[in-house]
This record gives sequence, C-alpha cells and structure tokens, in this order.
Amino acid sequence: MDLKDYVASVADFPIEGILFRDITPLLGDKDAFKETVKQICDFAKEINAEIVVGPEARGFIFGCPVAYGLDLGFVPIRKPHKLPREEVTESYDLEYGKNTLCIHADAIKPGQRVLIVDDLLATGGTMKAACNLIEKLGGVVAGIAFVIELEDLKGRDVLKGYPVHSIIKY
Amino acid sequence: MDLKDYVASVADFPIEGILFRDITPLLGDKDAFKETVKQICDFAKEINAEIVVGPEARGFIFGCPVAYGLDLGFVPIRKPHKLPREEVTESYDLEYGKNTLCIHADAIKPGQRVLIVDDLLATGGTMKAACNLIEKLGGVVAGIAFVIELEDLKGRDVLKGYPVHSIIKY
Repeated sequence: MDLKDYVASVADFPIEGILFRDITPLLGDKDAFKETVKQICDFAKEINAEIVVGPEARGFIFGCPVAYGLDLGFVPIRKPHKLPREEVTESYDLEYGKNTLCIHADAIKPGQRVLIVDDLLATGGTMKAACNLIEKLGGVVAGIAFVIELEDLKGRDVLKGYPVHSIIKY
Repeated sequence: MDLKDYVASVADFPIEGILFRDITPLLGDKDAFKETVKQICDFAKEINAEIVVGPEARGFIFGCPVAYGLDLGFVPIRKPHKLPREEVTESYDLEYGKNTLCIHADAIKPGQRVLIVDDLLATGGTMKAACNLIEKLGGVVAGIAFVIELEDLKGRDVLKGYPVHSIIKY
C-alpha cells in the first residue's frame, strides 16, 4: 500500500502558489488510516514514549489513535483561550505576525518521555514551539512523528537534536 | 472506574457564570481515555456504524481513536477555509452571530451509516448542523455519541429521532 496514493494534492490552496497536501482521503480509507497510525505506533515504541502530545487540530487526528493504540494518555496543545486551567504558553513568528500555543501546566510530569504527533512538517515552527512547551514542563521530547514531510522547507533543521520520523515525503 | 472523576469542573470559563467541564485529565489518563473510547466503540457496533465523523477540534480527539479501534475511516467536519476541495456547508445560529461547518462533498457515500462523535452535548446546535451535513451528502446518521451531556440544556430534544449515547451526564 503506497500511502501517497491517499493524499490529494490541491493547487493554489489556501492561497495562490501553494500546493496543499490534503490527507482527508487517507483518513476516510480504513486501511490507509490504520496503516498510518500503526507506523506512528511503531516509532512510538522504538523511542519508548510514555505519553502522546498533539497540536490542535490535525495533531489530534493521528495523536489520539496512537495514544489509544498504545495504551497511553494524550495531551492536547491548543490555541489561546481554549484551556481552562493554569497553562504555559509559547509564541513563535509566522511570515506575517505571531502564533501562540498553550498547554496545561500539569499536563506532563518531569522526566516523562513524550511523543509529539502532527500531520505535516513544513518549516517546523509549530513543532519547535511544541517542543519548547514540553521542555518548559520538564518533559523529555523522546521523538516527533509526522504523516507528511515537505523536505524542501527543511523543517528537520529546525528540529535538530530530536528524533524525527515522517511517513510520506515530498 | 468512575469517568466523572477525570473531568475537571472550572468555574467562570470561558466567561463568568459558565461552569466549564474540562476533559483534559481524562485524556491524560491512559485508563480513563481507553475506557471512554471503548464505550463509544461499543455504541458504534450496536448501531452498525460504517464510518466515523467528528467536528473540529474536540470531535477529533474521540472520533479518531474510535475509527481506528473499529477499523473504520474517519471524516472531519471543519470550520470554514480549512478544506481544500469541493465542500458542502451548513450554518446555524449562535446566541450572538452564526457558525458554519463544512465537509468535503465526496466524504460520505449515499446510504453509508455514520456515527458522529463529539466531546460535549450542550444545546445541540453544532451536532444538529453536523447531522444536516451528513444528510445533504445522502448519508444515514446511524447514531451520535458524546463523552459528556449537559442534561439541563436539553440538546437531546434538538436531536430527536437520532440514537444518542452519552457517557457522563451532568
């Protein structure tokens, strides 16, 4: 099964000049979805992950079944104004403006080995901020898994020092 | 295991007077998360679900592991400007203003039996709009599952005619 067959490439979305990689056909196909989650589970076992973290919203799509499949807990990283209790935040620069990510302050135990899961590695900015959040809480980023990696954007360089696994590369 | 023990109740969030039911402790606990997903899987089997649908973002948290656990596909319902291909939309009224939900036009096959999963049943407005989307595509809403139901808000009345299952009731 070539999982790339289940990614739709859509020109000029969300803006002109961007070739969007759409994972909804992969999600909608039970075999492709299962195979993708299983591959991330295999990586999670290799790195001895103790808990799974995913950034809103598409990080939930793969992170939650990985946590369920491996009998682990799941911790959401959310956008501002979503988490109701004490939180830790991290801001990072976008091409225009800033983005902020949030995590509950009690979500990760010091020393806990964390797998972070997201759908797409592009420039790596979001994932680097996610790593910083985990480390602010005393957690260990044991590994990072993506479904898709856009290699030209060199997001791996931003995540240097962390084990990074991706399933489909463009 | 009383799953209610894993829900944090937070006063005055997101605005004064609201008692927010926070599921992040339930997600973070591997046994509570597993038990919750399993209960939704049991309901999915009863209603012979053929595919799982969840609205952004917290519907992904439970819907995706249910799909994975039952070897089914998953279809996301998203906010506007997120889906790149032809979509069907549904708007509904909020206390102030309107909300719009979107689904890819090819996401559900006519006659397909759909389980919709979300974290919380409050007034039922979001879920009713989700049901309308499925039916616009020719799908059958075989059942609807929530982790939490706020019974005072009578969301079930809005979803009359659909099998509704909830795990934790307030």
